[in-house]
Order: sequence, then C-alpha cells, then structure tokens
Amino acid sequence: MRRSVSLSIAMASSLGVCRLHMRGRGGLVKSLRRVQTFVHRNTGTVVAAADGDPLRKEATDEKHGRRSLSAVQAERQGQAERSVLISCNPRTNEKKFLKFLSRHGDVSKYFFYESYGIYALVEFTKRESVASLLEEAAIPTVSHEALVPFKTRLLSLKNIDSVGSTNQQYQPQTTAPINQLIQRLSREESIDRQVISLTESYQLTEENSRLRFLVCSLLQDMVAAYFPECAIKPFGSSVNGFGKLGCDLDMILDLDSISGRKAKTPKSASSLEYQLKRASTERAVTQSILSVIGECVDQFGPGCVGVQKILNARCPLLRFAHQPSSFQCDLTANNRVAVKSTELLYLYGQLDPRVRFLVFTVRCWARAHGITSSIPGAWISNFSLTVMVLFFLQRRSPPIIPTLDHLKGLAGPADKSVIEGNDCTFVSDFSRIQLRSNTETLEQLLCEFFDFYATFAFGKMSINIRKGKEQNKPEVAPLHIQNPFEISLNVSKNVNATQLGRFVALCQESSWLLQQVETATPTGGAAGNTPRPWGLAALLQPSQVAEIKSRKKRRREPASERIRTLLESLKNNKQPNKS
Amino acid sequence: MRRSVSLSIAMASSLGVCRLHMRGRGGLVKSLRRVQTFVHRNTGTVVAAADGDPLRKEATDEKHGRRSLSAVQAERQGQAERSVLISCNPRTNEKKFLKFLSRHGDVSKYFFYESYGIYALVEFTKRESVASLLEEAAIPTVSHEALVPFKTRLLSLKNIDSVGSTNQQYQPQTTAPINQLIQRLSREESIDRQVISLTESYQLTEENSRLRFLVCSLLQDMVAAYFPECAIKPFGSSVNGFGKLGCDLDMILDLDSISGRKAKTPKSASSLEYQLKRASTERAVTQSILSVIGECVDQFGPGCVGVQKILNARCPLLRFAHQPSSFQCDLTANNRVAVKSTELLYLYGQLDPRVRFLVFTVRCWARAHGITSSIPGAWISNFSLTVMVLFFLQRRSPPIIPTLDHLKGLAGPADKSVIEGNDCTFVSDFSRIQLRSNTETLEQLLCEFFDFYATFAFGKMSINIRKGKEQNKPEVAPLHIQNPFEISLNVSKNVNATQLGRFVALCQESSWLLQQVETATPTGGAAGNTPRPWGLAALLQPSQVAEIKSRKKRRREPASERIRTLLESLKNNKQPNKS
Repeated sequence: MRRSVSLSIAMASSLGVCRLHMRGRGGLVKSLRRVQTFVHRNTGTVVAAADGDPLRKEATDEKHGRRSLSAVQAERQGQAERSVLISCNPRTNEKKFLKFLSRHGDVSKYFFYESYGIYALVEFTKRESVASLLEEAAIPTVSHEALVPFKTRLLSLKNIDSVGSTNQQYQPQTTAPINQLIQRLSREESIDRQVISLTESYQLTEENSRLRFLVCSLLQDMVAAYFPECAIKPFGSSVNGFGKLGCDLDMILDLDSISGRKAKTPKSASSLEYQLKRASTERAVTQSILSVIGECVDQFGPGCVGVQKILNARCPLLRFAHQPSSFQCDLTANNRVAVKSTELLYLYGQLDPRVRFLVFTVRCWARAHGITSSIPGAWISNFSLTVMVLFFLQRRSPPIIPTLDHLKGLAGPADKSVIEGNDCTFVSDFSRIQLRSNTETLEQLLCEFFDFYATFAFGKMSINIRKGKEQNKPEVAPLHIQNPFEISLNVSKNVNATQLGRFVALCQESSWLLQQVETATPTGGAAGNTPRPWGLAALLQPSQVAEIKSRKKRRREPASERIRTLLESLKNNKQPNKS
Repeated sequence: MRRSVSLSIAMASSLGVCRLHMRGRGGLVKSLRRVQTFVHRNTGTVVAAADGDPLRKEATDEKHGRRSLSAVQAERQGQAERSVLISCNPRTNEKKFLKFLSRHGDVSKYFFYESYGIYALVEFTKRESVASLLEEAAIPTVSHEALVPFKTRLLSLKNIDSVGSTNQQYQPQTTAPINQLIQRLSREESIDRQVISLTESYQLTEENSRLRFLVCSLLQDMVAAYFPECAIKPFGSSVNGFGKLGCDLDMILDLDSISGRKAKTPKSASSLEYQLKRASTERAVTQSILSVIGECVDQFGPGCVGVQKILNARCPLLRFAHQPSSFQCDLTANNRVAVKSTELLYLYGQLDPRVRFLVFTVRCWARAHGITSSIPGAWISNFSLTVMVLFFLQRRSPPIIPTLDHLKGLAGPADKSVIEGNDCTFVSDFSRIQLRSNTETLEQLLCEFFDFYATFAFGKMSINIRKGKEQNKPEVAPLHIQNPFEISLNVSKNVNATQLGRFVALCQESSWLLQQVETATPTGGAAGNTPRPWGLAALLQPSQVAEIKSRKKRRREPASERIRTLLESLKNNKQPNKS
C-alpha cells in the first residue's frame, strides 16, 4: 500500500450515500487512525469507542446504511407520501412560509431548490397534514385560458409576504461542470482523496433522493386511480447507490400485487371473478396500461412535458420530462429483472465502500471521454461499466466482493426468485456475507482497473459476475458481458468494435498517466491559484489518444514528442512500474 | 269527445314510467269511472277514496312521480352505487344464486336479462355489501391470454350449481319489432287504447332505467379516479320520460363541482393553489378529458367496444358500445344546456300524461316511416319532433301545457340559471304550475296533431315553445324550431326541404287515414286470427304516399284507384270530417 488510509464513514443517507473520508498520510490529518472498516464489517464487530467518539456514530450509521433496499425504499415512500411540492417566489420569506405550513401540522423536513423557478419540497410528520393542506388549496382563476381540474400534490404559493431578507438556500440538484470538478480534484492531496471528492460531488444527495421518491409518489397517485394496489418505485441509478446527481429517474409500475391474486376457490364451489379486458400477451397488457398512463400524464399532469410512448421497445416505456423536479423520467411496467439487478448492485455497493468509489470514478471518467453517452447507440452503458467494475473487484486477490453464485448459495428460502424462467435468487441478509480481508487503496484499485481492462482478452472471453471468472464467449460480439440474471443475454450487445477499441485505448492511456511522475503526483494548490491537473483530474481531461486518433483521421499530422512516447508505451502494453 | 275515458294512473316508476289505462266506452270495462286526473293534478286535490280503492294508490304514486328530476336521479344514483352486474350461466339456479349473494348482505332488487349472454343486475340494501362481494372476487386465470387487472363492478359467476329447473325470467331490454306492435295494436278496441299500448310497449322499464344508471355509475368509477368530485349522469331520452326501450344512453360528465371551487382568499393573505395543466379553451380541456377517458375505456373497460373519440364535434363526445348492457353510449362533458333541456322535457312530460303518450306515438310513427333515423343526416331529430309535439299542445285551446316563458315567470330565486349567456331559468316546483282544464282525448289530439302540421306555414313561421306561438322565421331554413335555451339556434338546422316535405306529406296521409271509416274503426280480433291493421296500427304501416312517390320516380306507373283517391284528397288539403 502506497498510502495508509483513515476511513471515517458517515452513511449520511439511508440510500447508501456514503461520505467516506480518506486522508493521505502526508496530508492535513490531525489524528491518524487506521480503521479496519472492512474487517469490522465482515465480522460484525463494532469499533470500541468512548462516548462522543465519532466512530460510535459511524458504526451506527454504517449499520443503518446496510438495511435492505426494500426497507430503505419503504421508508422513502412513506416520506414521499407525507410530502408536497410547492412552487415559491424567489423572495418568499422562509420563516413566514414555515409558519403558514405549520397550521397544517409539523414539518419534519423541507428544502428549497431551483428548477424552472424556485420550489420547496415539504415533508410533514403526518399524512393528515397533506390532506389538510390540499383541503385549503384553491383552483386558480385564469383569464384567456382554461385549466384541467386534475389535482395533485404540486402546488403554488401565492401572495406570501416577500418582505425581509431572502434567506433561502438552494439545494443543488445537478453536478458541477467537469471543468470545475477537475479544478477541485487538482487541489486534493492524494488520488484516494480525489476519488472520494469526485464521489461526494457526483452522488445523489439526501434531498435529491427525496425528490425522486416524491415524483414516483405523485405518479403513483395518478396510476393508483386505476390500479389501487399498484406501486411505482424508482429503480436503477436512482436507488442502486451509483446514481449521479441529475441522472434519469427510472420508475417501475409494479402490478404484481394485483395480478397475483388468482382465483383460489375449489372448482366445485361457486365464486365470483372480475370481468377483465383481455389481451393476447402480457406485453400487450403492459402496452395498454402505459398508453393510458401516458395519455393521462400528457393531458393532465402539471409540469409533465415531452411525453413519449415508446411502446414497441423490448421493454415498453413511457418517457417524459417532469419540470418541477427537472427529472427525465422513464416508466416501465413489470420489469422485475431490472428491479433484481438494482437490488444486486445496491448490495454490492453496500458490501464495501470502495465499490461505490470505484464505480463513480470509472463512470465519471467514461462520461468525460464519451465512452458512455445519454444518447442510445453503440456506446458502453453505465450498467455494463458497473458490471465491469464489479467483475474487476471479484478478480482481486483476495476478492473484494463475492461472486453472484456465492450470493445465491447464501440465499434463504425467502430469497428464492424466478422471473420468467430466470433464477434471480441471491441472499438479502447482508450479515450472512463474509468478506475477505483485502486492504488495497482506491489509488491501487484505480490503476489496476485500467491495467486489467487495457489487457483483457475481449476477443475470446466473456465477463461474468455470476462466476467471478472470465468465460469463453458464447457468441460473436466485440464486448460480451453476461447479463447477471438473464444469462443468455449479453448486456453489451450494442457495443461495436470501435467503441470497445476506444475504451481499451483510454484504459491504456489512463494506466500510463497514473504511472508518470508529472501526472500522478500532487502539484499543490495552496495560494488559491489553479494547480495543474494531476492524478484523477488528469484522467478526466480530454484524451490525448482520442485527440491523436481524430487528427490522424483528418490529416495524419505528426504527433508531438510527448504523445509519441505515450503511444509507444501503449504499444508495449507492459508498462514499467511506477517508482 | 268521441269516447269517454277512464284514467287509472299508476306511476310505476319514479322516472315517470306511467301506466295510464284508458278504456273505451264499448269495451271490456267493468267499472266505468271518469277521473278528472288533470283537474285534480292542477288543483292539487286528491281524489277521495275508501281504503283499498286503487285511486288512493294512484294518487300517491302520482305525487311520487312528480318529484323533480334531480331528486329522482339522486335516488337512482344511490341504487346504482349499491349494485353490481354479474354475468351468469343460462342454467344458473336462481335460489342458490340468491343464497350465495346473501352472504354479503340483503339484496333489495335483482333481475336477469340477456345481452351477449345472461346477466343479473343485483342491488344490495347497503353499499358495504358491494365492497364485501368485490373483496371476495378473484382475478381469473387464463391461459394463452393476458388480462388488464382493472377491477370494476362487472363480475362473472363461476361454478354455480346448475341442477334443478332454470326458472330465470329475462327482463326485455329492447322493444318488439314494429310488425308485432302493429298486430298488438290492431287488437285494441280504441285509438286511445292503441296509443297507451304503444307507449307501454315502448317506454323504458324500471329495470332498464336501473341498468342505465348502473352503466353511468360504472363509468363514474373510472372517471372519479381522476376527478373524485365529478359525477356522470344520464341525460336526454334515458331520463326525460320520452325514452324508448333500447335508446342510446347519453351521459354527461359534470365537472362543475370541481372547477367551481375558485380561489377565495383575499389578495393580501398567503394561499396555496393547485398547479394545473393549462389549455387554450374550455373546449380544449373537455377534449383532453374525454381523450383520456376514451383511452381508459378502450384499453381497460371490460365489455366496452368500438370506442370512438369524436372530439371535433360541436359538442365533443366519446362513443362506445357497452356489451353487458347492450347500450350504445355517448359521453359528453359540461354539456349543461342539454341537462336543462332534459329537465324541461321531463317537466312537460310530468305535467300531463297525454304529453308522453303523444310524444311516444309521434316518435314511433316517425321512426316507422323513416322520418327520424339513428344515422345522423338531414332527418328530423327526436328532439325536434318532441318540441313540435310540445308546441302543438301549447297551441290547443285551452292549452294543455304552458309556455316556457310562463314556466320562467313562475321560477323562484333558486331556479335562476344562466349558462354561457343563455337564460335557462324555469320553475322547478311543480306545485306552482296551474294547468287549464283541457279534456281532449288522445285520439282527438293525434288527429289534430297531424292536421296541425299538415297545414303549418313552415315556409314563413318558426316553432317556438318559449312563446307558445309561431314566430316569423329569423333565418332561411326549411324547418325552423327555436332552441328553447340557446334561442339564436335552430334545433332543426340540419333538416332539408325533402325531409320536411316527407314529414308534411305523411302528416297529411295520416290525418286522412284517421278520417276514413275503413282504417279508423276497430276490426275486431276476437277469434285469435290477426285482425286487419286499423287506427294507429294503420298509421304505422308503410306509407302509401312514399310508395307512390318512389314508384313515380322509378317508372311513373299509373297509381291504383285507391291511391289516386288518397292523393286527390291530399291535394285538397281540406278533408271532409269523418262521420
């Protein structure tokens, strides 16, 4: 280990929004503590600490953070149901606003943010308060226009006294631009600190997470009108622990609780059945339901714009932008394998904090270089990238995370899950999972990650987190990553040779950069002047390789001296170890 | 009066389904009573009668029947909310079926009928019974198909023991074919009896009326999901007292209760408003709402087929067929003038039983001759025809019904109603209306009706029930009937000269037929053999005039002797009085 690490974990949010502070040995650290967090976690022991010692809190928070995703979701859903979204005036007096709200009950949480105007998310202690608030809300009077009288928990505040100072603090709902991030990282004193800082800058905040669940809850109000037993839940990045501030909100309409109640009466007895509309397939039913919800969102939903019904996709979906939250929303139905994937990723992220740090870093790095994109195409997806990180962490020695087959072996009877013929069983009780004692630093892991994929035998091998070992490719595809649950599917089927080539070249370049003294050591940013990007910050800068390649294509210009060195070292593939 | 009349009124249904028995002097009448029903009604006195005398009951029923339409509707809606519709096996054992249902509570009313299979409408005494029943109902299991899990009060009975006799009695939901009606009427002993018999055959039954309100209630369940304060009510023929068994079900979505709650807080105070989707006009809002409901009915509604969104009509509407009831349904929204028109027609029908008898007869006569049609076109509508009958009754001496202006004059402050600038005010309290003592028989009125319109100055005059007098035509149109509430509109704008000509020619022919001894006197149908059609039955037979006219067009064949006589008499227009 090049740098010793002090980990102080504060699981700020129950959604696994970890703030793990790693401090380099030569840094500003006042007390140097070496906390074997991973080991404690594995054995379940809690670090002994005097009262007031931050470690006590950390241990508790950690426990809190390791609740199952469904428990976390249930809590968040409860919060969302007690919440309203209120459009405010930028000069709304916060004190008076709270006094106004308190007439309806205790406010347990509130915050302001900006999205096409100023909004406040207000969570009451009791659900009755929301009912009381809505009871008082009026239908606005408009001239020259008409209104669809569809009432939701999206409100507007009128005529609040705007005297006094405007002391609103706006909670950010998007990440800072990459340039600002590069500047911030360049000031850090170690690559470990850089990785942590990047994650802290990019991860979902407590507030953003609440907003996501509230948007689901608002949509559920709409759908529950027709399917009272249904639930709309976020899945994917919004809840798997790897979501970036500003990422899309993927939602699933869970109709299982309805369709699950089959006729039970014995054949001889009389019974009643609901008369239901029939469709040829489950898919057709899903399309019907999404179509109606789409109409409703489009015609009635305040702040919902750009509604697209993408019903002929492999997984039919409804896409729309929710302006009051700025979320790009995708709603699918009965997409249960996706929910299982989310739970698996969440579990891996909870097992060891280094998982989340590495995934955030690799995702951010990939996006900075256009390896991933928000537009569908032959690019590597964030999900593929995450599975690649997980696979890499399974391949460490000792492994940092277990294989999916191992997690399946630990499963109890209640964990049994077969979805459309796919075995999606894995353990849900975190305490059963025993981890091996790997103490590699984030810097080491980052370097090794780039090395690992710079030299991976993509041509022959398939990435397989179920086995935790590369397997022979079952089919021809530039990149083959076995879908963890639908094992006959290739997660990265869409990726073409060009995109895989770019990824490999960038891994090589990044690995090289992390081994050069001038790019891999802190440059010091004391006097407020912007330091030269180094370490992770250097990796996020526009690629030299890409630059050269695109130039070559254009005019075949001679490469500069520095770039030639880089390219030669890449050709060798075996770089000398950094001193 | 040619025949004295005994009226025994049994207002069987609170919807004004009257059964008024008129008996001819020379008939099978056992006790000849002359009941001045109309006079009693006018003065509010009740016929003195010993206990057990049928008149006591009649007087009570009459009072019952004269409740306001809204009171009647509220009762029917309550019944509908406590009802379910159950698809049964034709061999369902009625006794066991009732026993099965009784587990959920007392059944206050039930009946079987046929519509794409056997159905039972079951009304419980309490609404909780419906909830209990639904609680027990299962989602069916289907193979090779999928189901939309949208639950309604439309159910299927499974596995009921079908042993024992099948004693189900099916309530008819459609009228008998015209030929059967003609045969039945031919056996009657007077034209008055024929008119009554026709009305009894054609009017909505108690059961059919319940079914209409239940279909509205089922649709309201769907819409209330989005607009909890809304109501879906039948209007037009289904409730105005003039509906024929099997007529379309016109429904209105009343959103007034929602949009009416405007912001009330004074400008200085803080307040909350709902954020609502905006549209350019009220019409656009109506279109949005009907569009979403249409999607829902189409995709989710069991038994709802052939959904058409007719959103660009003057009054946007949603059309669909409801198979479990066999109703052709039209849903409009905020069509408040139509509701007022319904109330007005209902009121006129309640004032004097002859109104309903004459309207039923004229409507049936018009339909038999293709004067009206279910297809939109240049035909006279049932509404126009009804207004023409009302106008005719206002023009009797003394008038049988008052003018709309008179009803407006009697209105109290609560009756004030202005809809989109149109004054729709008229009295709702029936007891304020004093009628004149007109004692004309149905036969007289029918003859006079045909005479009246055979000689009406359609070329110059407009029909106006507000004034109760013909007015100079304000615009060029073959037929001008002022809309009672939107007074600048012509109810019969669509009617062309050809259609008006056919109507006039048929009035002339019918008037002539009722004055010929061979067609206007009973032929006696004692021995079970089918008697020759006479009186009203003769009027419903295919027209001679139409026959000639179409023949003339085809080949100009010489007309038969009988027809030549007819045509000549029509030319003269002044027929000799019948002896």
